[in-house]
Amino acid sequence: MRQVTTVSGMQRLARRWKAEGQGIGFVPTMGYLHAGHLSLVKKARQCAGDDGKVVVSIYVNPLQFGPQEDWSRYPRDLARDQKLCLEAGVDVLFIPTDEEMYPAAGVPGGAHSTYVIEDTLSRRLEGASRPAHFRGVTTVVAKLFNQVLPDYAVFGAKDYQQAAIVQRMARDLNFPVKIVAAPTLREADGLALSSRNKYLSEEERPQAAILWQAIQQAKKAVQAAPEPLAADALKQQLVQLIQSQPAARVDYVDFFNPATLEPVAQAQHGTHLALAVYVGKTRLIDNAGM
Amino acid sequence: MRQVTTVSGMQRLARRWKAEGQGIGFVPTMGYLHAGHLSLVKKARQCAGDDGKVVVSIYVNPLQFGPQEDWSRYPRDLARDQKLCLEAGVDVLFIPTDEEMYPAAGVPGGAHSTYVIEDTLSRRLEGASRPAHFRGVTTVVAKLFNQVLPDYAVFGAKDYQQAAIVQRMARDLNFPVKIVAAPTLREADGLALSSRNKYLSEEERPQAAILWQAIQQAKKAVQAAPEPLAADALKQQLVQLIQSQPAARVDYVDFFNPATLEPVAQAQHGTHLALAVYVGKTRLIDNAGM
Repeated sequence: MRQVTTVSGMQRLARRWKAEGQGIGFVPTMGYLHAGHLSLVKKARQCAGDDGKVVVSIYVNPLQFGPQEDWSRYPRDLARDQKLCLEAGVDVLFIPTDEEMYPAAGVPGGAHSTYVIEDTLSRRLEGASRPAHFRGVTTVVAKLFNQVLPDYAVFGAKDYQQAAIVQRMARDLNFPVKIVAAPTLREADGLALSSRNKYLSEEERPQAAILWQAIQQAKKAVQAAPEPLAADALKQQLVQLIQSQPAARVDYVDFFNPATLEPVAQAQHGTHLALAVYVGKTRLIDNAGM
Repeated sequence: MRQVTTVSGMQRLARRWKAEGQGIGFVPTMGYLHAGHLSLVKKARQCAGDDGKVVVSIYVNPLQFGPQEDWSRYPRDLARDQKLCLEAGVDVLFIPTDEEMYPAAGVPGGAHSTYVIEDTLSRRLEGASRPAHFRGVTTVVAKLFNQVLPDYAVFGAKDYQQAAIVQRMARDLNFPVKIVAAPTLREADGLALSSRNKYLSEEERPQAAILWQAIQQAKKAVQAAPEPLAADALKQQLVQLIQSQPAARVDYVDFFNPATLEPVAQAQHGTHLALAVYVGKTRLIDNAGM
């Protein structure tokens, strides 16, 4: 496995692979890898083929964190990430520095000043709770696409809205990349794998399964009902269920059209549910189709 | 010469060239080609090499025109453009449709909703006079880069700010493209070649040379002065000179730092001058270093 830390080095490598006709599969991450990430790596290998190249990037992108959010304390463990990538058969681990990614004022050519904005899907759900978050995501993903030049980029379904927005961005800006969404991996009690689970205290950890329990309850209710259900009433039930856990506080619970992300008044087969819940100080998200 | 009208067709061709290791030189235009464009094509050929490929796009991008601007009456003459490109040795003429470029509401996947924004250099000069203009430019150029996958993209120095913004965007988003600026071509009386010159009436046409005369007067003043000159006073002289032409009305005359586009209080060797002048109803721009 090769490790690359400069944008120009990554691009040189990617351009050489392109000229050699090799497929490139790409998994952008913020590191602190878990089995969920490794399932994305496996998917990237399937896409790129045994003769192709698989690149994993690790970059905790400051642009997608709000000023009150957890950028500086986001968990990092490079030695462990390197080992996991090596074992997973990654060809290149790409770890750019902040200086490489966002030139500061005083650099010849001036400070970074270009942003990619998705203006429709970004407004709801996570976008409403975390203003400017998706501007950071679309900007860094556009940069990474131009740095790694992938044929396939794999995103986790746990971040449903993120995958939808990246898909829209790739289409709108005509990136020659196929966006692949891979299913969410879960702990035995249903908690979706996430680097942020590490924040949970021993007392909070079992309570965090409440997101998955809420999803299951919603699915059951929708499947049992002979008619579409009023989304507001169902939402209220779920909020009540979630907040029965002493450490849990709901940020949002939303039923929406999976293609447009627009809210729906009626929950039924095909409707999508997403939720964000604070468990203690840790904000967790999850989602599923009904 | 091959003509391509679909994004997927253009991309397929470009990816094949890339896999064959061929260099791609690109000249994005809004058509109604003149000798200025053809000088950009020549530059693109020099960059791509005799064995490389040269692509010219023609697309009158609605996103970069304001609601009161001349998008619908912008001059078009495809038959003539085709002939000129053929004679100039262009390999591919790329003419995407509006439907291809900006999917409308109702299209599966939803209406176009992603924009590329340069937030610093775009605010002054043309950006102050034409809000949202550069958002349209950076968005369409990002799309075209992903469609044509050029190694070199050639822009005219007549649109100085545009070239600077595209350069900044390409750096910030890490497009693997070298941006090349090619010098402005001029008529015998100094008027910069522009498709919009066609709008000028017989009476207006000679008056349009006043932009070039103003540039010459500024250069002479700066070069003759033993000390830097107060930019405001010099500006006033130029406005007076320009408006001595009955059809001419100044939109802006600005002295600025050529790297940052920030206004300067003192004009001296190395300072850049840009101006926008209405001649009748036609808005013309020009610029030069002092």
